[in-house]
Parts: sequence; structure tokens; C-alpha cells
Amino acid sequence: MSMIVNRRDVDFMFYEALDLDKLLASERYADHDRESLDAMLSLCQSIAEEEFLPSAAKLDANEPQFIDGAVKTIPELKQGINAYRDAGLCTSGYDADIGGMQLPWMVDQALNGMFVCANNPIHTYLFLTQGVANMLNVCGSDELKAKYLNKLVEGEWFGTMCLSEPQAGSSLADIRSKAEPLADGSYKISGTKMWISGGEQDLSDNIIHMVLAKVPNGPDGVKGISLFLVPKRRLNGDGTLGESNNIALVGLNHKMGNRGTTNTLLNFGENGDCIGFLVGQENDGLANMFHMMNEARISVGMAAVMTGLGGYLYSLDYARNRPQGRHLADKNPQLPQVMISEHADIKRMLMTQKAFIEGAQMLMYYSAQIIDQQKISGDRDEIARMQLLLELLTPICKSWPSEYCLEANKLAIQVLGGYGYTREYPVERLYRDNRLNHIHEGTWGIQGLDILGRKVHMHNGAAVAILREDIQRTLDSAAHHNTLGEYSTALSRALGIMEQTIATVAQCDDKALALANATLFLDAAGHIVIAWMWLKQAVAAANGLQNGVAADVAFYQGKLAATAFFFRYELPKATTNLALVAALDSTCYDLTAEQFLGV
Amino acid sequence: MSMIVNRRDVDFMFYEALDLDKLLASERYADHDRESLDAMLSLCQSIAEEEFLPSAAKLDANEPQFIDGAVKTIPELKQGINAYRDAGLCTSGYDADIGGMQLPWMVDQALNGMFVCANNPIHTYLFLTQGVANMLNVCGSDELKAKYLNKLVEGEWFGTMCLSEPQAGSSLADIRSKAEPLADGSYKISGTKMWISGGEQDLSDNIIHMVLAKVPNGPDGVKGISLFLVPKRRLNGDGTLGESNNIALVGLNHKMGNRGTTNTLLNFGENGDCIGFLVGQENDGLANMFHMMNEARISVGMAAVMTGLGGYLYSLDYARNRPQGRHLADKNPQLPQVMISEHADIKRMLMTQKAFIEGAQMLMYYSAQIIDQQKISGDRDEIARMQLLLELLTPICKSWPSEYCLEANKLAIQVLGGYGYTREYPVERLYRDNRLNHIHEGTWGIQGLDILGRKVHMHNGAAVAILREDIQRTLDSAAHHNTLGEYSTALSRALGIMEQTIATVAQCDDKALALANATLFLDAAGHIVIAWMWLKQAVAAANGLQNGVAADVAFYQGKLAATAFFFRYELPKATTNLALVAALDSTCYDLTAEQFLGV
Repeated sequence: MSMIVNRRDVDFMFYEALDLDKLLASERYADHDRESLDAMLSLCQSIAEEEFLPSAAKLDANEPQFIDGAVKTIPELKQGINAYRDAGLCTSGYDADIGGMQLPWMVDQALNGMFVCANNPIHTYLFLTQGVANMLNVCGSDELKAKYLNKLVEGEWFGTMCLSEPQAGSSLADIRSKAEPLADGSYKISGTKMWISGGEQDLSDNIIHMVLAKVPNGPDGVKGISLFLVPKRRLNGDGTLGESNNIALVGLNHKMGNRGTTNTLLNFGENGDCIGFLVGQENDGLANMFHMMNEARISVGMAAVMTGLGGYLYSLDYARNRPQGRHLADKNPQLPQVMISEHADIKRMLMTQKAFIEGAQMLMYYSAQIIDQQKISGDRDEIARMQLLLELLTPICKSWPSEYCLEANKLAIQVLGGYGYTREYPVERLYRDNRLNHIHEGTWGIQGLDILGRKVHMHNGAAVAILREDIQRTLDSAAHHNTLGEYSTALSRALGIMEQTIATVAQCDDKALALANATLFLDAAGHIVIAWMWLKQAVAAANGLQNGVAADVAFYQGKLAATAFFFRYELPKATTNLALVAALDSTCYDLTAEQFLGV
Repeated sequence: MSMIVNRRDVDFMFYEALDLDKLLASERYADHDRESLDAMLSLCQSIAEEEFLPSAAKLDANEPQFIDGAVKTIPELKQGINAYRDAGLCTSGYDADIGGMQLPWMVDQALNGMFVCANNPIHTYLFLTQGVANMLNVCGSDELKAKYLNKLVEGEWFGTMCLSEPQAGSSLADIRSKAEPLADGSYKISGTKMWISGGEQDLSDNIIHMVLAKVPNGPDGVKGISLFLVPKRRLNGDGTLGESNNIALVGLNHKMGNRGTTNTLLNFGENGDCIGFLVGQENDGLANMFHMMNEARISVGMAAVMTGLGGYLYSLDYARNRPQGRHLADKNPQLPQVMISEHADIKRMLMTQKAFIEGAQMLMYYSAQIIDQQKISGDRDEIARMQLLLELLTPICKSWPSEYCLEANKLAIQVLGGYGYTREYPVERLYRDNRLNHIHEGTWGIQGLDILGRKVHMHNGAAVAILREDIQRTLDSAAHHNTLGEYSTALSRALGIMEQTIATVAQCDDKALALANATLFLDAAGHIVIAWMWLKQAVAAANGLQNGVAADVAFYQGKLAATAFFFRYELPKATTNLALVAALDSTCYDLTAEQFLGV
């Protein structure tokens, strides 16, 4: 079995539980059909298995080194990137007009997901570059695009996002990096940027940084932030690489996981002029940066899912092949040992992983599909409606997998026991890698404030109303299967409690108190949305059992079992959390810093 | 503030919430009083802070190496051990008759807990040695004790436990190591042992292995296991060190955390005779090994607590000193940033850590106190009663902190954000270290089977009845404080549901089905016991607010807030889990290995 993908499951989600067929019937995606996409998935699977997966442990054990102001990486890292680039995959995420494959984004997520599962630290360089290219394509001037875009699209140069500074992590209002206008329209950039993934490396000839900085005399706070394209090396008039742009690598951060991706502290313009180019308008920087935030946050969620999947597949394979102990009903030591997948608690740990990972994976594809559907819709109201739903789902896409697919990684270790705790097996590495996802691209707490403080209130709660409508459609289709009635009732009830909770919290005048348990609300909303995703899968599985092929019976039964598991073991937790949110419980909020220890 | 202990809290638990005073009034502990113990705690705190804590990161980054068949460790490891030994601390865990300090074990747990928090990988060598010495003292012959015991007690030689083998981890029935009787009464040992912590090192002149092996023609399974003392180097007639005993180090396991403790694969007698000495009687090996299991499992729980505490203290200190962002009520960027301990979600994450860690720490001291009380009681019935309660609590002591104090470590990382994810800060190391505790000394699943399959049924449920009686005593004392009524009601109700659940499950004829959700039962029982521990602390805090000094008001308020948090945010989860157990839910149990993926 593959350690990076269950192709049957991808097919199930795409063509049985979701509507990829409809997307492929549109003019926008006319160049693709199921057959060509299958071939593409197979190609990516083999490159990921052959060029990414084998070096994952070595890259983790031999992280990039900071030597004489530069970065040194192991050759396998570049080899993986070359294999990806040589297959033309750098262009998978773009439209045809800028040289891309114009794939449905949900398919692009699946293609790239295999590389993420195999070796996310390599993939991160590629992922960041895609974000920069998309941002430049949407917000940049024709001149900037002419100079930089194609090199990024082709993967010849890589890109980074430079937001945080040592004194300003989540609080971008407090960044101090400066951009002083020069006579030729460019800017002189100065300042220190922190946590910059891929900020320095020995993999591409140039690095294109997207940098948030403040121009003189702008407004305070986030309203005075502008976005600049700042290349590591300047370009000559003919577009060839010129002199250094004076971006100094101060140091590398040494992370618990994701070690193959450099994480840098950069000084801009410390020892000479560092030139940047405005992207969009002055003081519009944050809006421009956030233009890509929905996609970025879904991709972070997808990384959490795929990192969880790696642990699930490995631990499942291990459990099905590791003899240990006997059935409780007959422990006669003269009997041979059974495979540990026969033990109830091992099944529980495997099922928990399955329910978390496949539930979240479905949400990632579903959300990506919304973006694809927006692009083929000509109806502005429909596009706006989809946008509202997407905005509501985004903090869930970012946070829920970061929490629960990490939990899955923890269980994968437990399935392997002592072996799982050693670096000789991959599951501990995946656990370490996944711990990152709750932190970058907006922390867990930030996502909580986003959903309860902003998203549920957009347009007088329109997003939640749309969620209710779309869930109702799933409930309607579930009504054709008697066996799913238990779940429909539970989902509808939980959603009702969530709606009431939002209404209750909205009446609280103390905004800070209203949001004190926002993270719990986010967690509960995530559970409700994932339950919905499982009900969608259950409907498709029930249909499959009625109409599908006999060889798929176990697959469909597994989907129905996972649905049962999620609704019985997990969904009840949402109600408990929502009760605390609705009660405006202030147990934590009221605490003073002294009360923790008494001093 | 200290990064390894909150001394005020230790005092609170010992003298306000528990009964150390009563222990100290007994003849057995007459050599100690509060003053002497305070001095001892202070001494240990400074040695741990000065000789253990500073090398923790370096030891993690420079784990022991396997060079030419031997182990090489960094000098700081031996330096820490020497400081501990030179202070006479190796003898802290033993009675006076074998040269020990004869401390109450709850105090010994607190003393050693500071070393665990500071640098558990160093302490593990010492901890294992104590287990071996105690086992030898209880089960060994006078001759063996005369030769080996004092060297172990003094910490001159170290000890190990050799249970697992490559084909037999949790399933000890399947061990294959052999012990053939020799004419002189000793045995020839052969076989391979795995996961042996401290199995080889360059720290002590000799290593005393306690090895499970099978004598010829014994019964099958666990009934045919015997226990042997097997030294790394044999002793000459005069007790001096003699020749090698042919125990080969095959390799070291490379762990995710706890890296400073060697974890070894050992071959006994591969290249020459390996001589072992029977401890206790033939075929009594498992019983002898388990003689110390309650203490060992409580110590594992204590390690989980202290590893969690390290993260909590560090993240609390960080949060109180790290400015970032502003209050939600006024986000004016011209205002200075506030400390992140002011943010509601940071408070939630700190409070969750506090509630988990201090709740579990209280349980560890409480359980240790039971062992101490057994030793000063002359009443056999009372001792038997305490033993039953201890047996019931032991799987909770082992597992609950392994789960929830790891969760606390996860939150400590989150409080630090990106910094927390780097090896420049200790919180990620503590998270990695703590992941071990769910695995060794009986996995999570094993503990679940132990409590629901065995412990709750002992003597017709006597242990649970004793738990009910002792909880009732706490409810009675809580009745003096009106503010605690909410908690008493909730605890009594949850305990009742647990009792009903046990009764329901007991009626199930399918034993395997009855135990299918044993891990969930363990989790729920843990939540109920920890809620009890918090109610005990709440009573003491409420008393303290009435009678204590003004300087302690914030401390007591923090205890009451943590009680509120645990009862409101956590205890409800127990009911959800118990409902699944009582329903004999078979969602996971029914799964076949094929249904996970469909193949």
C-alpha cells in the first residue's frame, strides 16, 4: 500500500461525495478530464514516492546549516525540487494565461498533497513560491509582472512572505520595517523580518520576498502597511541577475519539526541599500497580503491533513503486520499472536485517525471546490454567496486539522508503541512536523477571534445562514437512507445550538467577554462542519453500497463506520463547548496574572 | 521565579490539602519535621537548578553515542549525577535499615520531581536504580543483597529493568529469553532484550540488570517467567569487580525525546557465558517484577506531571513578560502593547495547563501518601483497604498525566507561538520528552484493560466502594463552603454515572466487547478522580481564604478558579465517554482491518 495516498478515497471524495465531474464539464476546465487527471495523479504519486519520501528522514536529521552567512542544504532537497520542476509541476497552481495548467484547485490540492505527505519541508519552498506568484499576479504592476512573474511560475526563482518582526508576531500593527521612496519610484527598504520560511537557501538563483513595511507619514497601525517586492539579487536592465540587494541572513531558527525548510531572521538594508518595489498601492499592503489568505489557510489545513495521513497510513500498515498478544476471549499462550489491528483499542486509535483525517480532507477539497465553482460561475450573487461561506469555513480549515490531525499523529505513535517513539520510524517526525500548523498563518487563538468576532456576523449573519442552507441540502439527500437518520437529527440539533450560541453572544455588550471563549466556539463549529462532511460521505457511501461494485463494499462500510464514530464519539463534544461559550463563562477571562502561581 | 517548582504550591498540597503533618507525627518519620524537609527541598531545588537544568538542552542536542560497542555521553550528564550523589540523594527513596533517609514517599516524590522537571533524562538513570534496589530488597536472597544492594542504594552502580523483547513488547507471555540452571545454583542467561533504558552507559562502574527469562520446562506464558539479577560485570569473591558478563550492546534507539537516557538493545550471552542469579522463586518472576509496579507507575505519572510543569512555568513566565497586541476593547495602535498574559485565550491556555498539572500533581502526592500511610498503620484491614484504593488509582496515575500533561506541553508551545516551536526554547523539548510516558511501564490501552477489566471488579467492586467513601469525606468537608456546592453536586453525579457504567458493563457476557471502550472508561475515571483532587484543593483554598494570610489571597483565588475551570470545562467530558462505555458501543470493535482503506 502507498504511504502517501489512498487513491480510492481521493476518487470517492472527488467523484462520489463532491462534484468534480461538474467542474470538468465547464469550459474553464475543458482541457482536463477524469482520465487525464488520473494520469496526473499517478505521475505525481510516483514522483512523490520516489523523489520526496525517501529523503524525508534524512532531511529531518540533516537540517539546513548556516555557514559563512549562507545556507547549505543536503543534495536530496534540490534533487526533489528538480524532479518536481522537471515534471512541470511548478505550474500546476496557475491559470493558463500566465503559463499554468489551469487545474481545478481541488485537484491541485490533491496533487500537491501527496508531496506534502511525502516530504512537506521540501514542498514548502514550492508552496510559498506559488503564494508569491499569485499575489504578484493579482496585485502587481505590469512592469513587475513582466520581470518576475514567469520566473516564479516556472519555479526558477522562489518566493517568501515577510510579515513578522521580532517585536511583532501576530500583531502586525506594530511592524517597524521602513520603505523610503526613491526618485525612480522604487523604495529603500530597511528592517528585520522574523520567521521567514525559505528566506535564504541554496536552491534557486534568486529569492523574491514579499515584504510588509511602512512608508513615511502613513497612518498608524495596520492601515499604514504597504507591500513590497524585494529580490535577493537585483535585476539588470535585460532581466538577468545583477548585484546583491543587501538582505543579510542573521540566523536560522532550529525547529522541532519541518526542519528541512529554512526558517530565517533577515536584515534588510543593513550593510547597503536594499531596493524594493511597491505591489499595489501604498498603505494597502495588508489587504493585498490577505488577498491570498483564504487559499493559504486552506493549504495550511491541507498540510495538517496530509501530515496526519502519513501517520495514519503508516500506523495502519504496521498494525496489520505486527503480531502481538492475543484475543481477550482466549489468551492461551500456545496460540500464535494476533496482528495488533485485531485489538479493540488499536482499532479505536486507527478509527480516530481515519475519522479526523478523512473528515478534514473532505473539508479541504470541499472548500477548494468552492473556489473552483466561483471561477466557473457567471452569477455574481452566487459568487458572493460562495465567498461568504468560504470566509466562514476558512478559520475552520486552518485550525481544525491543525488540532485533530496532530492528535491523529499522536495516536499513530501510540499504535507503534516504543517503535513509534524512535526516529527509526516516521510517525514521530510527522508528529513534530504537524505541531507547526497551529502556529503559522494565524495562530489558533487568532482564528477563534476571526470566526466568532467577525465571520459569523458578516452581513448580519449571512454566512451562517448559507451554511445552514447547504447543510440542509445534505440532510435532504441523507433522508433517502433510513440508516442515516440518527446523524441528520444530531447534526441539525448541533447546528441549532451553534446558531443560538451566536445569537446569545451577539447580545453581550462586553466585546472582550463575548470573545473570551472564541477558541472553544471555533472548535465546536469545526466539529459541526466535520460532522457535515462525514454525513456527505455517508450519503455517498450509502449510494455506493446500493449501486456500486462489490469490490468496494469494505470501503463503503468503513466510511459508514467512520461516520458513526464521528457522530457518536466526537460531535457530542461540540455541545459541551457551545454551552460554555453561550454562558459567557468568564473563569479564565477573570484571571489575573498573579493568580496562576500566587505570585 | 523558579522554572522547576512552585514551592508555595508544594507546601499547600502537603500541609493544607493533604496530611503530611500526620505522617511526620508518626514514629516512622520521627527523624523529619517540616523545617528539615523545607531545607531538604531547598537543597534539592538549588542542585536541580544549578546542575540539572542548565544541561538539559545540550543533553537533548547531544544524545549518547554508540562508539565501538560502548556508549559515550557528554560530561554534563555525569556531572549532574555526581552532584546528586554527592548530596547523598541516591538514598532518598529507601528505609533506614538499608541506609536510606526514610522519607515519606510523597516528600521523596517532590524532591525528585524537581530533578525530573529540570532534566528527566539524567534522573531516569537514578530512578531506574531505585526500582531495582527496592525489588532486590523485597525479593532477593540475603546473599544477593549483601553483594549488590548497598552499591545500588549508594548510587555507585546503576540498575535496569529488562522485560521487553523484539517480538514481545506488551505481551510478556511471549518472551523467549532463557535461563539454564548451572551446578552452582546460578543460571546461564541467553536472549535479546529491547527498550532497555540505561542498559549501557559510561556513568557507573557496573550495571545491574533485572531480567525476565524462562527456565526449562516451566509453564507456558506469563506463569513461566522468572526474574534474574544479571550484572554487566561479574563480582570477584571479595566483591570487587571481575570480568565481563558477556552482555553485548547491539544498538541504541534514537528517540524523539528523553534523548539523554540511553535506550538499548542488549544481547545476553551471545559471545560467552552470561551468568544470572535467581531473584525470588522460579516462575514467580512477573509477580516479583510487579511488586514495584504501583510505585513505578506513579513515578511515571509524576514524570509526566513534572515535564508538564516545566512547560507551564516557562510559558507563564513568558506570557507575563512578552508584550504583543492590545486589549480587544481598545486596539489603538498608539497605545503600548500589553503582555500576552492579558489576552483571554492565553489565559485559557495557561489555566488549562494549571488545571491539568496541579490536579495531577495532587493525585500523585495523594497516591504516594497512601503508600506512606500504609507504612505507619498497624491495622491490617486499614492497610488492605488502602491497598485496594491504590490499585484502583494506579492506572489513572500512570495514564491521566501522560495524556493531559502532554496536552499541557502542547499548549505551552502555543503560548510561545513561533518561539515555542524552536529548539532555542525548552517547551518543545518538554513536549517531546513527555510523549514517552503513555508508552512505557504499560501502554495507555493496557492501563485501560487493567482498570475496567480487573481493578473495578476486585473483591466484588470493593475498590470503587472505597473510592466512593473517600470522595464522600471530601464532599462532607466541602459542605462547609456554600461556594463549593456546584462542584460537590457535579462530582457526586459523575461518580454515580461511573458506578452505573461499571455495573452495566459487568453484565455483558462478551468480555471483549465489554472492554472495547476500556480506554474511554479510564479517561472518564481519571477526570472524576482529578475533579475530586480539585475539590480537595478547593476546600483547602476556601479554608485558606478564611484563615490564611493576606499575601496568599491570589494563590487561593487561583486554586478556586482552577477548580471552577476543571469542573466546568473538563468534567462534563467524562459523562460523554461513560455513556459510550455503558452503551457497549461497538463502532470500533466491529471494524475489520480491510474497512479502514477499503483494501
